[in-house]
Amino acid sequence: MTPFKLSDQLIEEIELLIESKNDTALQNMFGEFHYADVAEIIHELNLEEATYIIKLLESDKTSDVLAELDEDVREQILENMSAKEIAEELGELDTDDAADIIAELSRERAQEVIAQIEDEEHAKDIVELLRYDENSAGGLMAKELVKVNENWNVLKCVKEMRIQAEHVTRVHSIYVVDDDEKLKGRLSLKDLLTTSTKTQISEVYIPKVDYVKVTDKAEEVAKLMQKYDLEAVPVVDELGRLAGRITIDDIVDVIKEEADKDYQLAAGITQEVEADDSIIELTRARLPWLVLGLIGGLGSVFILEGFEEIMVNPSYRGLFFYTPLIAAMAGNVGVQSSAIIVQGLANDVVKGSLLNRLVKEVSLTLINGSVLACLIVIFGFLMDNPINFSLTIAISMMTVIVVAALIGTFIPIILHKKGIDPAIATGPFITTSNDIFGIFLFFYIAKLILGF
Amino acid sequence: MTPFKLSDQLIEEIELLIESKNDTALQNMFGEFHYADVAEIIHELNLEEATYIIKLLESDKTSDVLAELDEDVREQILENMSAKEIAEELGELDTDDAADIIAELSRERAQEVIAQIEDEEHAKDIVELLRYDENSAGGLMAKELVKVNENWNVLKCVKEMRIQAEHVTRVHSIYVVDDDEKLKGRLSLKDLLTTSTKTQISEVYIPKVDYVKVTDKAEEVAKLMQKYDLEAVPVVDELGRLAGRITIDDIVDVIKEEADKDYQLAAGITQEVEADDSIIELTRARLPWLVLGLIGGLGSVFILEGFEEIMVNPSYRGLFFYTPLIAAMAGNVGVQSSAIIVQGLANDVVKGSLLNRLVKEVSLTLINGSVLACLIVIFGFLMDNPINFSLTIAISMMTVIVVAALIGTFIPIILHKKGIDPAIATGPFITTSNDIFGIFLFFYIAKLILGF
Repeated sequence: MTPFKLSDQLIEEIELLIESKNDTALQNMFGEFHYADVAEIIHELNLEEATYIIKLLESDKTSDVLAELDEDVREQILENMSAKEIAEELGELDTDDAADIIAELSRERAQEVIAQIEDEEHAKDIVELLRYDENSAGGLMAKELVKVNENWNVLKCVKEMRIQAEHVTRVHSIYVVDDDEKLKGRLSLKDLLTTSTKTQISEVYIPKVDYVKVTDKAEEVAKLMQKYDLEAVPVVDELGRLAGRITIDDIVDVIKEEADKDYQLAAGITQEVEADDSIIELTRARLPWLVLGLIGGLGSVFILEGFEEIMVNPSYRGLFFYTPLIAAMAGNVGVQSSAIIVQGLANDVVKGSLLNRLVKEVSLTLINGSVLACLIVIFGFLMDNPINFSLTIAISMMTVIVVAALIGTFIPIILHKKGIDPAIATGPFITTSNDIFGIFLFFYIAKLILGF
Repeated sequence: MTPFKLSDQLIEEIELLIESKNDTALQNMFGEFHYADVAEIIHELNLEEATYIIKLLESDKTSDVLAELDEDVREQILENMSAKEIAEELGELDTDDAADIIAELSRERAQEVIAQIEDEEHAKDIVELLRYDENSAGGLMAKELVKVNENWNVLKCVKEMRIQAEHVTRVHSIYVVDDDEKLKGRLSLKDLLTTSTKTQISEVYIPKVDYVKVTDKAEEVAKLMQKYDLEAVPVVDELGRLAGRITIDDIVDVIKEEADKDYQLAAGITQEVEADDSIIELTRARLPWLVLGLIGGLGSVFILEGFEEIMVNPSYRGLFFYTPLIAAMAGNVGVQSSAIIVQGLANDVVKGSLLNRLVKEVSLTLINGSVLACLIVIFGFLMDNPINFSLTIAISMMTVIVVAALIGTFIPIILHKKGIDPAIATGPFITTSNDIFGIFLFFYIAKLILGF
């Protein structure tokens, strides 16, 4: 394949063709593009142009394009379309993608659109999917799948599969159900390729099949599929009946979003935002953490004011020069400890007792701290600082970072145990609390040692 | 499925069975487990017990277990196995997994092992894969795939496919090649299901097929497969000949590692480490960033010393109480800006001109900054601070965070343009440089305004 490359030139060309209403040229040009590429192009056009293209192209392509667009762009385009036009697009989509789009519409609009979907079975499936939380297996699954009854013979099975497969983009597994629609097992396409065609389903199916429940969390489904290298997993309802199927491409998105979210939280950005989102969205995602940081900073102002008197003493006032250093070290160590724990919790690799973890984190920090303390003493020596002053700073810094590491380790673990997403504890939250703790401890220990 | 749950009880039970050498019970118990679960169990056992289990179980299961283990655990177990034993395990694995394991061995050991692999074709394939960089398409691909010649008829095709499919875990696509092994197109299994069996391959294959080159970067392959929702992609060599195939499960790992790596870098952790890695590995990953932070902190000590004289002046010395706040705000804003750019660059959503981005980031920071500045003035009012003092702090903080946002935005973009991973610029690097810049700017602007 010559990889598709979006260029300013291409966009200009398209804009000119739209302006001159050269529909044939546009149709020819877009006929060659993959829907994911069309979506990229749409993101570069203005609303009017984008709507023009969507209405011009055939709906089997535009439906996929719509599913691929960013939510905010899609919302604007859908506003320019009638309920009937939307319904036609959704008719072309798999139920899971259709349900995701409908879920973004207002309640009245959604009902209008659903009423206009021609294929009643499809509409019913979409309505069923709307019942589920979007972060659950039910919210991820599609109704499209290939299933056969255990009481059929292979002949009937193959015939039925051919019909069902028409609606299914990728078959993966053939699920076997009993007369009550309960999931019994699976057949692989490969088995069908390599098995004689004259066998009874109940004799050949594999009764061992991984499955998830409609209520399982998306995150858990992702972990299961990753661990067992599954490319598709059937979803059963409360009664064990086959309700849908989740494929790996949906899970890839969950994994990516989950990892991106942890990173954003670590950087003090709540909500899913992207570089190209609006300023208001970006402000909402970022300002709260900055305010938290500010409050923390004002807290440290109080603490430092408490030590104002030593400013008149030339031997001790140098401590104030070290506050940014101490705060930075406390923050850095805290963020390191918490990031590694948050990632470990997300990937299920945090095992063993809390005591072991405590011993390990403290040892690690003592090793790092000793190196840093030596550097501080050497720096003090080069600066001709009195040795007891340098030692004070080195010792308090060691204490501060050990405490910071413990806070960074245990806050995520505690949050996780309480069922709160531990990623919230990384980033500004840890940095800010460690700043305050760090500065307080630093001056308090210095006071104890130097005796001011 | 009843999900597998690792428990201390289960581990104890297994350890007792190993101690009493109750092989039958162990074989029965492990016979039920998925290899991914066995790998989890192995991680909890000591080396001796782990080796015992690996040697006890059948090699079709243990080979998968070995491929699933953490590198360091696997290394230890392989040391306890002969070259012949290892070769037997690798004979059971797909070429990509086998090559990954061999790549971890010493050169001599690897040659010994390869010489012992019975299936010469398999050994040859593995040796070929070892040629490629592990972060390239060649390093990710497996040799196992199903391919047919365009000149075959469907009858021959199906016969050949049955033979080939025996070696392939999941078939996905059937690739079509010409007599020179050049990739011509693909057939889908679904097409085969729904097409009459009496057709010529050259008449039915789809000539449009996405592919990657052996030298393409793993990251690029991941992006392509994600964008086009591919579950498998063929890999061609320099001459366009079909060389291998990459499946989505390998790409899931790439995506996850990439996102995790960005997060770790943001938190000041280089190298792929996990919570359960050794203290030495963790120190190597963390200490360099702490030293960087320390050097930055010592830099700010210098800057602050330059303003020592104002400590004797009760009207101005309060500025020192605000240094941690200023440093924290500069760090927070810088990390936010850089994280959003780094993620945007990784996901290819950073478009448009640099000037637009500059205007946007500055506007965003001015909005956030105004809110924060108001809070500072209100705080100063409550504290009975002189108004010009509060305003000075508010204004300098605004300037500091605008600069911090610009640094946070443009350093990643510049690094990216120079081909350096921009994620390196988030976290401690940005925090540290912003600390220094921030504190300097803060005092400098305060000096201009207050005129000391």
